[in-house]
Order: sequence, then structure tokens, then C-alpha cells
Amino acid sequence: MSFSTIAIIGLGLEGGSIGLATQAHLPEIHTTGYDLDPGTRAQARERGLVHEVCETAADAVKNCDLVIFCVPPGAMGDAATAVADVLPQDTLVSDVGSSKQAIAKALGDALPGRTIIPAHPVAGTEHSGPGAGFATLFHNRWCIITPPEPTDLLKLTALVEFWEALGANVEIMDAKHHDLVLAVTSHLPHLIAYTIVGTASDLEDVTEGEVIKYSAGGFRDFTRIAASDPTMWRDVFLSNKEAVLTMLQRFTEDLTGLQRAIRVGDGEALFDHFARTRTIRRSIIEEGQDDDRPDFGRTDHQT
Amino acid sequence: MSFSTIAIIGLGLEGGSIGLATQAHLPEIHTTGYDLDPGTRAQARERGLVHEVCETAADAVKNCDLVIFCVPPGAMGDAATAVADVLPQDTLVSDVGSSKQAIAKALGDALPGRTIIPAHPVAGTEHSGPGAGFATLFHNRWCIITPPEPTDLLKLTALVEFWEALGANVEIMDAKHHDLVLAVTSHLPHLIAYTIVGTASDLEDVTEGEVIKYSAGGFRDFTRIAASDPTMWRDVFLSNKEAVLTMLQRFTEDLTGLQRAIRVGDGEALFDHFARTRTIRRSIIEEGQDDDRPDFGRTDHQT
Repeated sequence: MSFSTIAIIGLGLEGGSIGLATQAHLPEIHTTGYDLDPGTRAQARERGLVHEVCETAADAVKNCDLVIFCVPPGAMGDAATAVADVLPQDTLVSDVGSSKQAIAKALGDALPGRTIIPAHPVAGTEHSGPGAGFATLFHNRWCIITPPEPTDLLKLTALVEFWEALGANVEIMDAKHHDLVLAVTSHLPHLIAYTIVGTASDLEDVTEGEVIKYSAGGFRDFTRIAASDPTMWRDVFLSNKEAVLTMLQRFTEDLTGLQRAIRVGDGEALFDHFARTRTIRRSIIEEGQDDDRPDFGRTDHQT
Repeated sequence: MSFSTIAIIGLGLEGGSIGLATQAHLPEIHTTGYDLDPGTRAQARERGLVHEVCETAADAVKNCDLVIFCVPPGAMGDAATAVADVLPQDTLVSDVGSSKQAIAKALGDALPGRTIIPAHPVAGTEHSGPGAGFATLFHNRWCIITPPEPTDLLKLTALVEFWEALGANVEIMDAKHHDLVLAVTSHLPHLIAYTIVGTASDLEDVTEGEVIKYSAGGFRDFTRIAASDPTMWRDVFLSNKEAVLTMLQRFTEDLTGLQRAIRVGDGEALFDHFARTRTIRRSIIEEGQDDDRPDFGRTDHQT
């Protein structure tokens, strides 16, 4: 492995998981970390998320050859600016943010002349904070790396090897295309989940108690996603605005089509649509991207 | 238990689970069953979903004191008509359909003068057919019973006891209110999931392969629901049209509000909304309606 010291800035779900996974899979690498929040630093120390939790970002990065920013998209610029003066000239700069064009620009503006290769591990849970991370988060998940043009191929190779060592499958992608793909596979689903949970909790004729009680009919699935970190998701939507709005437009058109089919009683159109969407889940399971057990294998079926 | 013979018409996920659960919890009850599809009948025999799989619906119901129709909402009328001439006069008629006003009417039209007490166990998985049922499907799930006015209180009590014996918690509700509650906790979530899965699989600039590959970012959750039985869901939307369209209108208003917040860059509005929706999941978990493990406890985190 080309890296001997890795600094992780931001010790929440992603940063903490990288720290734990690196210690598990690459024990020869020294890991340092920093988080703006003193409580998070204390918990990170307790859980041993990295070898060394530092009291300043400067301390964390001063000897590293890879720094990974694991803060919300909107905080990337400030987090990078805070270490600009002390970051070793040859250190590779990367991140884990969910939108890549805006973050590449923010890091580039804050750290001119440095080698920056953004990355996005498509892995997470609805939990956040320093207690949420675990070493296997990236196992058999995709990590999308979006190198700028031209890129430092040796450093790119090292970053690919690093993510593969953590259990991820790596894909190289253009940042703009990444933002479009993730807008549909991640950002739009979150926006819709946040919307419907808000709608359901804000009705006059159905109480919130009823919504909670009868949530097993489908609604509860959406509440998991809608329990994700609000700061991060605010930043995702603001930093990938254009692609999200494009995908939302497509979704709205399709929803209007189904709404019309219901209104006019067009059972055939509904059936055709529902039969078509059924097949895509099979492919997702075949590619190892979801659990085949009914209902995601929730415990209540084992009791 | 007041029932000695129960007939189950329709041996898919719900009917099969009722058969298995009755045998597990109420072994003194004789269970008979019928399904229109010969292949389903054969598989039901193999799995022993009921004690006796009959070759006609008439045979299945001729000695029963409770018949439960477990067919799609749109097929309830025909299924009931098929047994109208042979059903014992005193037999209680019930069902498990997801919309209650339309089904109550269909059963009433087909079986005039009989005691009909509709029910809806709010429990299911994305799998369907005779292979999908299991005895614990109703454990700690709600079963909503929507008795007509006036109702036969002795028979209602017997039906309540039956569902409680299967592990369900029973709630009595007005059929119209049921349809509104389920429109938001079940029907709208399914409609939205079916829509987004369709949208994602039908884009020009993002391939279906990419959607599948990066589905762990949130999309895959929706594919589970969108893998549900197309016939049943077509019928649900057609039979609960009014309530579904009302809830869809509310959802669209809320989505438009969030869309506007993204477009104008109103981070505060987004954050407030996302922070609010986070709390409802906690209540669902506290009430035992979902799994607290991250990501529903999907297996990939244990590997």
C-alpha cells in the first residue's frame, strides 16, 4: 500500500467506518482523525475509530500522505481551507461526498495546486455520527472515483487500491455523469422519502399515531431513508441541484401518468407498469446489491 | 375458538400464511382451501398450506363456519359469487383486502343476506404466490376489522379472537377511515415506489445497469415494494381511487414545496423538513413496527 499515514477529517458514519476498515484491513497504515465537534472527538477516541484523534485538523494532517474529507458537502471548502497551510505538498486529497462536481470545485478552490481525486463510496445507513460507523460498511459496495483531467495516475492507482483493500468495488467515472447517476439512484429516492414522511405526519384526517401504527403496509420503509442526516442531505440537494431537478421532473411526469391511469380507471396501464418494475429488483439481488430475504430479512419474521 | 372449519379462498401470500398460522396456533380448527390456479393448488398441497386443498371453491366452503377471501380486490365479487349457492347460511364471510369500502360492497352484492365482516391484516412481503406464505406473518402486526353497521357482535368477537390467536393486534375501524389511513401508510408509498422504479429504468442518459449497480444509495429500498404483486396493486388503486388521489394531491403539493426550496437554494427550509421527518422513525421502532438495526439489518453488514 502506497500510503503510510491517512488523515480522516470528519468522524461520522463514513469517516468512522473508513477508520475502522483501514485498521481492520490495512493494519500497517497509521490513521489520524479530527472532527469539529469535541463530543464526536471524545466518542471517536472511545471507539478507537482511528489510532490518533487530534485536537486540531492541522495536527491530524501534518504527516499524512492521504487526507479524506468526510464532512457534509457544504462544509468541504471550509474543512479544506483549515488545513491548506499545513498540508504536506505531496499529500493526495480525497473525500466521500455524494455530489462530485461541486465538491471538486470547493476542494480545488481551497487547495490550489494540490492533487485532488474525489471519491464516493455508495454505502451508508440511516444512522449518523461517531457511533454509527463499522468496519464492513464498504464490503461489496461500489466506490466511484471521479478523477479530474489530467490526473496523477500513480496516486489514482493508490486510491483505487486503498478502496479495494477496504472491500469496495471501484468504478472510475466522469464527475458530471456521477452526479446524474446518483441523482436518480440516491438523491431523488431520499427527496421522495423525506416528502412522503412529511406528508403523512401532517394530515388532518389521519393522525400521526395511526400513520405509525399501520406503517408496516409500506410507509415504514420510507422512514428509514428519511431518518438520514439532515445537514448532509440539505447539502447534497443544494450541491447537486441541477441533476436532482432534472430527475425530479422526470419522476413528476411519470407520477402524473399513473395518477391519470388511476383517475380514468385504466387497469391495463397500471398492470403493465407494475409488472415491468418488478424485474429490476431481481437484477439488483443477482448483482449482490440487496438482500433476497422477504422484507429485507427484518427480524419480526424470525420471531 | 368459535370456528371449527375455516375455508380460505385464494392461496397466495396472505391465504397461505393464514392457513399455516391457523395450523400452528389453532390446531383444533380444520382448514380447507381453494385457488383458481391449478398450479397454486398443487403447490399448496405440497407445502400443506391447509389441511385440505379442494378442486372447487364449493367443496372448500361447504362445511365451513368462516370463509376468508384472499384474492385480489378486483376478484372478490367473482370469488364470492362462485360459492353463493353452497355457502352455509350461518357462515361468517371475511377477507384480507387492502381496500375496505369497495370490497364490502362487492361481497355484499354477491352474498346478499349473509354476515360479512371485512378485515385487513397490515402485513405482507414483496413476495407473492403459494410459496411466499409463512406462519409468523401476522405476529405483532395490526389487523384492522371494519364491521358494517349494525354488526353481529358474537361473530365479530369470534373474528377478533381468531386474528389475535394468529398473533395479530386487532383494531376496529370504520371502512371509510380505513381506506384513508391505508391510502397514506400503504397505497401512496407503493404508488411512489412503482413510479420511481419506472422512472429510473427508463432514462436515456443513465443506463439500467448503472441504476442497478449503484442502487445501494437508496433506490434499492423502493425496488422491494415495487416488486409486489402487480394484479393485487392494480386492484388496490382502482378500488381505493378517491382516497389515493386525495393523498397523492397532498404529496404532490409537498414535493413541489421541496422542489422550490432546492431551486431557490433555501437550505433552512430543507434542513427543517429533514430534521422533522427524522423523529417519526423513532416512534415506529418504539412501537415495534420496524427493525432498529441499521439498514433493516440487511445481511451484507454481517459479512
